[in-house]
Amino acid sequence: MYRKEIKVLDCTIRDGGLINNYQFSEDFVKAVYGAVCDSGVDFVELGKKLVVSEEYPTSVYGPWNFCDDELLKKIVDSHPNGHRPTLAVMFDVGRVDINSLKDKKDSPVDMIRTACYVPQIDKGLDLVKRCKDKGYLTTLNIMAVSAAIESDLMGALEQLRDVKELDYLYLVDSFGAFYSEQITYYLNLYSKYFPREKLGFHGHNNQQLGFSNTQQAIIDGVNMLDATINGIGRGAGNCCLELLLGFLKNPKFDVRPIYKVIQNEFHPLRNEIEWGYNDIYGISGILNQHPREAMKFRANKEKKDNCFDFYESVTRQDINTIE
Amino acid sequence: MYRKEIKVLDCTIRDGGLINNYQFSEDFVKAVYGAVCDSGVDFVELGKKLVVSEEYPTSVYGPWNFCDDELLKKIVDSHPNGHRPTLAVMFDVGRVDINSLKDKKDSPVDMIRTACYVPQIDKGLDLVKRCKDKGYLTTLNIMAVSAAIESDLMGALEQLRDVKELDYLYLVDSFGAFYSEQITYYLNLYSKYFPREKLGFHGHNNQQLGFSNTQQAIIDGVNMLDATINGIGRGAGNCCLELLLGFLKNPKFDVRPIYKVIQNEFHPLRNEIEWGYNDIYGISGILNQHPREAMKFRANKEKKDNCFDFYESVTRQDINTIE
Repeated sequence: MYRKEIKVLDCTIRDGGLINNYQFSEDFVKAVYGAVCDSGVDFVELGKKLVVSEEYPTSVYGPWNFCDDELLKKIVDSHPNGHRPTLAVMFDVGRVDINSLKDKKDSPVDMIRTACYVPQIDKGLDLVKRCKDKGYLTTLNIMAVSAAIESDLMGALEQLRDVKELDYLYLVDSFGAFYSEQITYYLNLYSKYFPREKLGFHGHNNQQLGFSNTQQAIIDGVNMLDATINGIGRGAGNCCLELLLGFLKNPKFDVRPIYKVIQNEFHPLRNEIEWGYNDIYGISGILNQHPREAMKFRANKEKKDNCFDFYESVTRQDINTIE
Repeated sequence: MYRKEIKVLDCTIRDGGLINNYQFSEDFVKAVYGAVCDSGVDFVELGKKLVVSEEYPTSVYGPWNFCDDELLKKIVDSHPNGHRPTLAVMFDVGRVDINSLKDKKDSPVDMIRTACYVPQIDKGLDLVKRCKDKGYLTTLNIMAVSAAIESDLMGALEQLRDVKELDYLYLVDSFGAFYSEQITYYLNLYSKYFPREKLGFHGHNNQQLGFSNTQQAIIDGVNMLDATINGIGRGAGNCCLELLLGFLKNPKFDVRPIYKVIQNEFHPLRNEIEWGYNDIYGISGILNQHPREAMKFRANKEKKDNCFDFYESVTRQDINTIE
């Protein structure tokens, strides 16, 4: 597949940080950043830019939850030559301080991606506009749409119609619940409100569909694609960057630095933290559930592979508690 | 997805046997057979039916490479009540003795699936006709079509046109190299020669596309789908039966017996043999290569995760040896 308009965004540190409280070492982040630079990937997201507080201290929540400008500069300066991806961080509605955000011209950050749920669309949109006022590229990533009531989603999308401050609007499959025809369905819905060529896609791999759904988004005309190295990310993780680059035949991409950093950094990391598809996340995806139950189940070392027990517990729970 | 014509074939023992020389214990096969029965799956393939010889003794190549009728009867009789899937075995061109095959009425086997490469299509077709003469349901599974010259493939398909002895013709993605649009392309090609409603699909999971490609085959009108429990199978394995049943909304299927046998039998088995997606098989799939190099690489316990080294070795090898 080749289409020159296609852009790839590596969100390895940002989505991967969700499984280790953003405690990656500086050396690890430098290795990731260097590999992404060398691979020719267009964008890199190095974490969230939340506000530090007594409730959320850096010591517990990790440096990449807060992405101090000085820290980001150290990472960027560690790889001064060659291709430099556009640098992104993520905003979570309700946990950021827009007033302390510097203007783009005074910051190493180029793009701010705002994540929100459907009911938070007003707040998300407000952040998008304020970020644009300060000179940033902007995205809005509407999470968990597979669990949203469709008329609510359409109401949210209506608010985004012709919003000139929004550079990219993301379809996000937070629960890893979608398959290809649903990707097409939702992208068609989104494109009624927002230009298709400015849509993005962020998938999860609960049903081993993270990569294929990203391919489907490409087929459906999406030009902005999220992926992570080795698929690292919350729960079942994301679309693997190395598979996506192998699929995209654009000669500007080189997959070898990605395989190198996998071999040197990610393979050892698997001894410390777990990510990727397994039966438990598969069940979670099929049932269109938030991954928190599955992640809790996986945390029990003795029982984490008891997929039948998990299936029974989550399906029977539904029967008992929903009326 | 619901379409009443859709049939599922479990080939857990047959494809899984490729990674342990068909050395599954009788108890394991009984557990698989019982789970498949209880899940309502339509077909089950319990191995190959090759000819025993001095060169290929049962002691080395395992009982499920030869599927003696008495052995099959023991398995079938171990689960006498409830739904009974149609029982299949596989023929490999050149390694079977058609004359020793009993008539269907005297055998526990219902269906014989003949596997062949494109250049073997004459021999494969001859076996299909002879099996039909003896009263069996038949399939022809053309392997490795992603590596076949297309005009050769079309010549092979031409020979299959209107062959009434052939009940199902399979598109097989032996190298796990295809993605959705290629599945559609090849199915359209096949359907020019053979009725679409009698096509089957057998995928591999090298690029995490085993399940999604099976979904694409369904979307494209294929009604006969192969899958294995927990995706067990050569190299990166196959489409996971549990994911497929979760996707198919037919109430005749019950996924719970499959999760039960995974929890009780397949999870412990992972301590003995390896299957499923990893970086090495991903590279093999992207490069449309036979998995043998990848499997050889995985056999080296110390270096099996060195994906960069593998990528370099297989791509440089190509440069050096092809003119």
